[in-house]
Amino acid sequence: VTLPTEFQNLCVVLVGARNPLNIGAAARAMSNFGFLRLRVVRPYDLAWREARSAVGASAVLRDAEEFISVADAAADCTLVVGTTSVGKREVSLPLRSLEHGARILRKQAHTTQVAILFGSEKVGLSNEDLSHCDWLMRIPTREEHRSVNLGQSVAICAYELARGISQSSPALQKKLGPKKDKPAISAELERLVQLLLEAFRSSGYIKPGPAPLSEEKWRRMVRRLNLSAGDAELWLGAYRKILWKMRSGK
Amino acid sequence: VTLPTEFQNLCVVLVGARNPLNIGAAARAMSNFGFLRLRVVRPYDLAWREARSAVGASAVLRDAEEFISVADAAADCTLVVGTTSVGKREVSLPLRSLEHGARILRKQAHTTQVAILFGSEKVGLSNEDLSHCDWLMRIPTREEHRSVNLGQSVAICAYELARGISQSSPALQKKLGPKKDKPAISAELERLVQLLLEAFRSSGYIKPGPAPLSEEKWRRMVRRLNLSAGDAELWLGAYRKILWKMRSGK
Repeated sequence: VTLPTEFQNLCVVLVGARNPLNIGAAARAMSNFGFLRLRVVRPYDLAWREARSAVGASAVLRDAEEFISVADAAADCTLVVGTTSVGKREVSLPLRSLEHGARILRKQAHTTQVAILFGSEKVGLSNEDLSHCDWLMRIPTREEHRSVNLGQSVAICAYELARGISQSSPALQKKLGPKKDKPAISAELERLVQLLLEAFRSSGYIKPGPAPLSEEKWRRMVRRLNLSAGDAELWLGAYRKILWKMRSGK
Repeated sequence: VTLPTEFQNLCVVLVGARNPLNIGAAARAMSNFGFLRLRVVRPYDLAWREARSAVGASAVLRDAEEFISVADAAADCTLVVGTTSVGKREVSLPLRSLEHGARILRKQAHTTQVAILFGSEKVGLSNEDLSHCDWLMRIPTREEHRSVNLGQSVAICAYELARGISQSSPALQKKLGPKKDKPAISAELERLVQLLLEAFRSSGYIKPGPAPLSEEKWRRMVRRLNLSAGDAELWLGAYRKILWKMRSGK
């Protein structure tokens, strides 16, 4: 099966999924619409084994990759989008409708790797998970009953993402699209975040030692910058030098 | 809850559903999107009782109506649409895409009762069931994996049907929409550029003294970041501290 690039470049990331039936349902819906790349982050062990060994477990489940953190799971992606059915969180991330978000994801997936994150059934995505996201996408449910089942969320998003793919001709996109720098992948951005934090600690701007809140805040800040790969490289070089200077103490 | 007429006039009909989890999932998805009228035709008795008595069984399940035939279930409807994920059947019914079909259903539901039929998990809709339909609608899955889970089918159809109706309440959109910061004014950006350049000089990343090319390059870089006023303030604070540290030489 050869699928359009957009399908191959989009991976679905399930974070902390707890129910084997939901994991199976998510994989099935992905397969229905042609998204074959599943990544799981810290799934409940038993649930994960059960889902994988289920009768008729799909190729999607068999080929799924396991990661211990969102940072690792999204390392090779230029765009990381979180899903929320609730939207109650006070995070300073842009919130897009599924329809609008899917349009952006498809476009970006035409040339680079992108990820769409789904949180656990109980609590959704944590603030730490969200700090790795560029923006959020919401399925437009009614206010009185917002929370969508995980397997159904994945099905609806896969449907909406697939809906537009065959329709937009890549040749035309290419001709009309602006020639832009390649966006930075998450791993590069994360290097930048860590280097920044080191510089902040070294300067006394933040206290030494772990500081999860600062880390999340500055990760969001860096992701908001929408850096190209080239720009990220330049910033990295500058910070390395600054850090070296502060440490050398001269 | 007062929903637009289209929602009130559309009923979902599950024919011969066998799995209580699927019945529950279908009802939940309906409720998510505002379709509250469920009708069931010859459900497997045990499955139906189990679904209805499930913890958290919704108002949709509680208010569902039971019928012994498709004819009865669709008696008050002006348009009856069958769903198929397979499309292999040799029935002489028009087959429409979900997107196209949903458009027609919405329009008709604006003034009269309409029904959308889902068959059982195993065999779908029978030829007898289909004979009560005006046309068929297919969820656009890929050829290699066509068959969609019942709960997910209902979720996707409900999403697509609701998508065009109200475009959700503007009040909600407003509440959830991204709270955008005021963008930074040029003077703030320029302060940031100058502070950056000082830090770069101080670290040895660029040579001391005037460097018009570096300055332009980094100004363009900073402007590309599209910083909000708040973010610019934060970056300024961090750089001040870093610069102070490098200069104090400790």
